[in-house]
Amino acid sequence: MTGQRYTVHRHQHHFGWDNALEPVLEVEPGVAVEFEVVDASGGQLHRGSTAADVAALDFARVNPVTGPVFVKGARPGDVLEVEILDFGRTEWGWTAIIPGFGLLADEFPEPYLKIWDLSGGKAEFAPGIEIPIKPFPGTIGVALPEPGLHSIVPPRQNGGNMDIRHLTRGARLFLPVWVEGALFSVGDTHAAQGDGEVCGTAIEAPMTITVRFHLHREQSIAEPRYILPGPPTPEADARGYYVTTGFAPDLLEAARKATRFQIEHLQQAYGLSREEAYVLASVAVDLRISEVVDAPNWLVSAFLPQAIFR
Amino acid sequence: MTGQRYTVHRHQHHFGWDNALEPVLEVEPGVAVEFEVVDASGGQLHRGSTAADVAALDFARVNPVTGPVFVKGARPGDVLEVEILDFGRTEWGWTAIIPGFGLLADEFPEPYLKIWDLSGGKAEFAPGIEIPIKPFPGTIGVALPEPGLHSIVPPRQNGGNMDIRHLTRGARLFLPVWVEGALFSVGDTHAAQGDGEVCGTAIEAPMTITVRFHLHREQSIAEPRYILPGPPTPEADARGYYVTTGFAPDLLEAARKATRFQIEHLQQAYGLSREEAYVLASVAVDLRISEVVDAPNWLVSAFLPQAIFR
Repeated sequence: MTGQRYTVHRHQHHFGWDNALEPVLEVEPGVAVEFEVVDASGGQLHRGSTAADVAALDFARVNPVTGPVFVKGARPGDVLEVEILDFGRTEWGWTAIIPGFGLLADEFPEPYLKIWDLSGGKAEFAPGIEIPIKPFPGTIGVALPEPGLHSIVPPRQNGGNMDIRHLTRGARLFLPVWVEGALFSVGDTHAAQGDGEVCGTAIEAPMTITVRFHLHREQSIAEPRYILPGPPTPEADARGYYVTTGFAPDLLEAARKATRFQIEHLQQAYGLSREEAYVLASVAVDLRISEVVDAPNWLVSAFLPQAIFR
Repeated sequence: MTGQRYTVHRHQHHFGWDNALEPVLEVEPGVAVEFEVVDASGGQLHRGSTAADVAALDFARVNPVTGPVFVKGARPGDVLEVEILDFGRTEWGWTAIIPGFGLLADEFPEPYLKIWDLSGGKAEFAPGIEIPIKPFPGTIGVALPEPGLHSIVPPRQNGGNMDIRHLTRGARLFLPVWVEGALFSVGDTHAAQGDGEVCGTAIEAPMTITVRFHLHREQSIAEPRYILPGPPTPEADARGYYVTTGFAPDLLEAARKATRFQIEHLQQAYGLSREEAYVLASVAVDLRISEVVDAPNWLVSAFLPQAIFR
């Protein structure tokens, strides 16, 4: 481990996973690397954007990731540990309902955009409703074993767009290495998100992320794993949760029902519009699987933290 | 509210939901009612049982619920609030792998039984591995609107076998009322369980549960909801989590993969057998939905609390 620190700059980004991409940096394990991350719209949305700009998004330019970084010594079959060290400040963010995208896509056909001012170090949704800022990278991964260009959208055995909200400061992510040097990239930084990311977007916010790599040999994992050093959601837990449930023979449908009921609750209890409630659920509500064994009905619980309400 | 307290005894149980059942007790809202609960095997398993007894289980006698209790004034369209007040002591419990049942049923075809000694107020799985006891009712609900006898196994719009591990002391469950008097029953008490209950059983333990009813009129909910007064899992959070993930176009398959990887980890890191690891995952590991929007792959995370290891 050294005190040296590298920076990968925001223009050093790419779209999709391709193991033929030239590395923008080579590093030894043990050094800290800072990545400047472009927001998930790839700069298409800004503080003054409206729902019309969401409708006009060019999907070929969404979800850029910064990298790839070649980690010296990493070989297929190794495990690359990514220690999440820190995040830089973020000034603003956005959450959108994008037509055709999201858990309830059929019920929300119109584009919608919420712009967040994060400059005060907090994320106020509306007067009396404040989301704790807890940054993590929505997309973090390594090159795939298969050649060619692969869409950035789905997560796979290389990690990628996993949208795991718990990859916050102090977490350690373990990724299987598929190609020489691993070819690590990261992007899609989120200022906050609930487990599930139900509307399809989080508080999408450009910021820097600093990580440190470690290599583990003679270990082998098929898919990503992670370690959290302490309580997952201390900032949200203190005042408990209002929880809706949904049951169905299909787990996705159960998740849809629980989310729908939570949206209804948010509308009724806090006077939000449907779109506002869907967006708030996406950035603050956690989906848990209560049971997947009582055939034919599985049950999903949607946890709304009461701590976000003043 | 009165200081009066009622007890519904263990012999006052029934199998399945049937809105024609005669109530065993009528109460006003506001009083505390204690229910003596028979274990989920209906007394077929005991401290000396073996895997052979699991194979011989008579399923017509599983998952008895104590009740039904007629709540005076409850009418269809009301909401019955069930305040979880307390649980009695429990001396022992069991966790079984039941052939044909559970998230990984195809991979665990043989019966398996773990008997827990809970008499010391703790649930030791093996030397150095201890599960915090945190009782809740696996099955809690009211009569269904439809006439006839309905299997107890699946949860439905009446609640029932929801296996929501968070319905612990202090939680408040809201159930839609479908028939006059609601006809409330409860059973299937668990000493501990993870979100998901992956092997199909929890620490199944006979005990008493005391609840208080409240009625809400002019509210209407389609399916059960609940409120937690504070942090969901403070007893498990302190030392963080080891988390496996699984991605798949089907959420159930993603849950299966994350569970399988967690079983592998438990075997490798702690020297457990496959069956032991599956059982431990069922009583201690929480399934969370990380994302359900990055088509075509959804991602499930399986959270193993490090606090259970000495």
